[in-house]
Amino acid sequence: MDFKILPTTPLYETFSELGKRIFLPDGIFYWSGRAKKEAEIMGTIGSAFGFEKDFMEAGGTEWLPCYLKEVKEYTSLGVKDVVPYASIGGLAETRQVWKDWILEKSPFPSDVEKKKREWLKKYISLPLITSGVTNGIFLSSQLFLNPGEVLISPNKRWGNYDNIITKFSGAQIKSFAFFEGQQMNLRGLEEAITEVAKSQKKIVIILNFPNNPTGYVPSQEEAEALISLLKTKQKELNIPFIIIVDDAYEPYIYSKEVLNESFFYALQQLEQDIIPVKLDGITKELLLYGARIGFITIGLKPSWVASDAELETLKAELNNKLEGMNRSTISNCNHFYQAMLHDLFTKKGTNQLKKTREAVISLLKARYEKINEELKKIQLPEISVDPNSGGFFLFLNIDPEKVKATDFADHLLRTYKVGVIPIEKPAEKINGIRIAYCSIDLEKIPDFVSRIKQALNDF
Amino acid sequence: MDFKILPTTPLYETFSELGKRIFLPDGIFYWSGRAKKEAEIMGTIGSAFGFEKDFMEAGGTEWLPCYLKEVKEYTSLGVKDVVPYASIGGLAETRQVWKDWILEKSPFPSDVEKKKREWLKKYISLPLITSGVTNGIFLSSQLFLNPGEVLISPNKRWGNYDNIITKFSGAQIKSFAFFEGQQMNLRGLEEAITEVAKSQKKIVIILNFPNNPTGYVPSQEEAEALISLLKTKQKELNIPFIIIVDDAYEPYIYSKEVLNESFFYALQQLEQDIIPVKLDGITKELLLYGARIGFITIGLKPSWVASDAELETLKAELNNKLEGMNRSTISNCNHFYQAMLHDLFTKKGTNQLKKTREAVISLLKARYEKINEELKKIQLPEISVDPNSGGFFLFLNIDPEKVKATDFADHLLRTYKVGVIPIEKPAEKINGIRIAYCSIDLEKIPDFVSRIKQALNDF
Repeated sequence: MDFKILPTTPLYETFSELGKRIFLPDGIFYWSGRAKKEAEIMGTIGSAFGFEKDFMEAGGTEWLPCYLKEVKEYTSLGVKDVVPYASIGGLAETRQVWKDWILEKSPFPSDVEKKKREWLKKYISLPLITSGVTNGIFLSSQLFLNPGEVLISPNKRWGNYDNIITKFSGAQIKSFAFFEGQQMNLRGLEEAITEVAKSQKKIVIILNFPNNPTGYVPSQEEAEALISLLKTKQKELNIPFIIIVDDAYEPYIYSKEVLNESFFYALQQLEQDIIPVKLDGITKELLLYGARIGFITIGLKPSWVASDAELETLKAELNNKLEGMNRSTISNCNHFYQAMLHDLFTKKGTNQLKKTREAVISLLKARYEKINEELKKIQLPEISVDPNSGGFFLFLNIDPEKVKATDFADHLLRTYKVGVIPIEKPAEKINGIRIAYCSIDLEKIPDFVSRIKQALNDF
Repeated sequence: MDFKILPTTPLYETFSELGKRIFLPDGIFYWSGRAKKEAEIMGTIGSAFGFEKDFMEAGGTEWLPCYLKEVKEYTSLGVKDVVPYASIGGLAETRQVWKDWILEKSPFPSDVEKKKREWLKKYISLPLITSGVTNGIFLSSQLFLNPGEVLISPNKRWGNYDNIITKFSGAQIKSFAFFEGQQMNLRGLEEAITEVAKSQKKIVIILNFPNNPTGYVPSQEEAEALISLLKTKQKELNIPFIIIVDDAYEPYIYSKEVLNESFFYALQQLEQDIIPVKLDGITKELLLYGARIGFITIGLKPSWVASDAELETLKAELNNKLEGMNRSTISNCNHFYQAMLHDLFTKKGTNQLKKTREAVISLLKARYEKINEELKKIQLPEISVDPNSGGFFLFLNIDPEKVKATDFADHLLRTYKVGVIPIEKPAEKINGIRIAYCSIDLEKIPDFVSRIKQALNDF
């Protein structure tokens, strides 16, 4: 592909060498695409096809991918939804329904704020289908970070960020203390940005609301202050900012006092080069952990292009790069869950799915309320719960002078038969336990917290 | 993980910096594993669980991953086979059935050559489940090659090798002309090995039989000569050799005159440090392109360990590294196809599956015979068909002086309505077309070849 618009954008400046280098060669796809339209006899398709009767007893006369008949017993979807490859960037129709879903979830109802919604529709890329959120984070790290370059992240983050960014990619994470009291520590973020800007001409930040492991979601005021900080710093430094928005837990918000939609939407409205990258997964969002279907959606800026035609070219070029990354790591994502997702969204409809999911959100919300209520009853100066309003977890800080988190978890498990995940990172000033209330029955929560209290009293 | 045995092996010497660096931290898995055994109340599991009745009307009393009831309509597998995460390295039982399958496909029947089969069973790693063969190639390239380092490959190879190795990984491919007349060009391979050994202390080669795009499978004599060459060169250079065996098309062999099993088996019997890495996929092997399920299996050598206990430690350490790579790129592979594969292998059995698949192999074999027969009738000095005995494709070389491959393909498509994939790499002395007879009906083959003949006569 001949890249014309993309290299002129600030987005391109943020790419790693790999990001600049990668593309999807059009060879095979060009010729097979043309053959589909122009040929009477095709010798281009690299999958075995035949008339069903020629490879199966009692088969029909349809020209199909050759498949094992036993496979059909496992699904109500058709052979064509389970056997062939899905496209490199994902099934076109599944990508489209996900884009529609992003619009539907936006804070811009189509009737009231039609303009903002149209803007969103126009300037976001068609979601690329990735193998889950992990794969989205991995591809983003490869796209934006050279080995040695720096990603900014709160110190309390999903542990797998460190595997992906540090161990695999050889890049670095610049941490900042996530909280100052019960507020997000914006000063810490600001200092991290200032520091990183000394050594690289782009800022890459990853944010995850609701957060793993704390359950934090910013209040409306905090979200506005965060936006304001990003605007000020970007203007001051005059380098592009990439904000990776890890939306794994997007719908699980249990308080009306906090931001009730993805932080992506506010970022996308900014005219400055604060470029949001939305990472989704049906993993938690549709409770399909085993599906390994996620999405990367990038917010483009009007200032980068001179016309709608250029915008379309830019989208095609960016899509080529993202598909090039899929092609050279996983080829494409599994077909069954992509097809099922499309069928669910179109045949059942998002309203029904949201209604079905609402029961799960309510269940988690009840646990969230109960566990916070119970934990508040433990009046010990050496512990504190991080601000939390969503997601699957919360985080209980323990003063390391009292007891180290791993020692505490070990004692809690041995003596009180309660399992939690300790996180102990002295350099990051983290000492505490992650409590996955997503998997604790409501009725057990008082007992669960009471055992924690007893265990704490042992130290 | 504390690596004790792996760093002492020649395998470790072949690892890239990333390969040396990567591991799966045991934190979360250690604590959740202990909790499963020791806890009465678990707050470790990062997936939402509940009693079915608490998140679904008319739900049961079972403690299940919270799921959307609509999902159940798509599969006959249970919720637990579709909704939760599969393990990082793949479902343990699916990994095991694939290992058994590798043994079953070996040229060592358990009754006659029991010793060789036991050896194979003992010294190969438990297959790691990857997201298809592409992902296996990608992970291998990351494990073995630093940017700038060299992989040796025949010049006629799957085009995606170049995307993975060169564009994504920033490593290099050292090509050698695949054929000398109708034989594999072993001298070319030998020269490439000698050349690469000047600049790196390991040799990494990728081989793919049946080959894409040529359909080449070595004859028994060629396979023996290839083994002999590898043994001689490895002894001479005294550095470890990694042989990546891309077995994507393993079962599709249409001649009894050629090697009728994976080249992996012969390599694994060698006592020298010629280390085979077997890459499989159910993609073509079980005609499930859309599944994105593949396997990496590594052959270990007796000389690396002093005892069976050390061998087990080595396997655990290697597995930790491979799982660390999965964790930091895709987390794990999709559950549905893994569960289906296990069910197919255990409930239907491999004999039945092989029988079902036999119809497809026969269909392809008939096309293979017909197309070779028809192509032989074109008596033109400017064309030649590469030796082929298996797979999905064959390759027709065209003298570039007569016509460039892309010009020919364009003419063939425009004038004769026949689609093929041209491959034109002057630097590699390749000019020809890949014919995917896997997707051409037997009855159309004479017409297909006749149109090619006419198109050739136009130049």
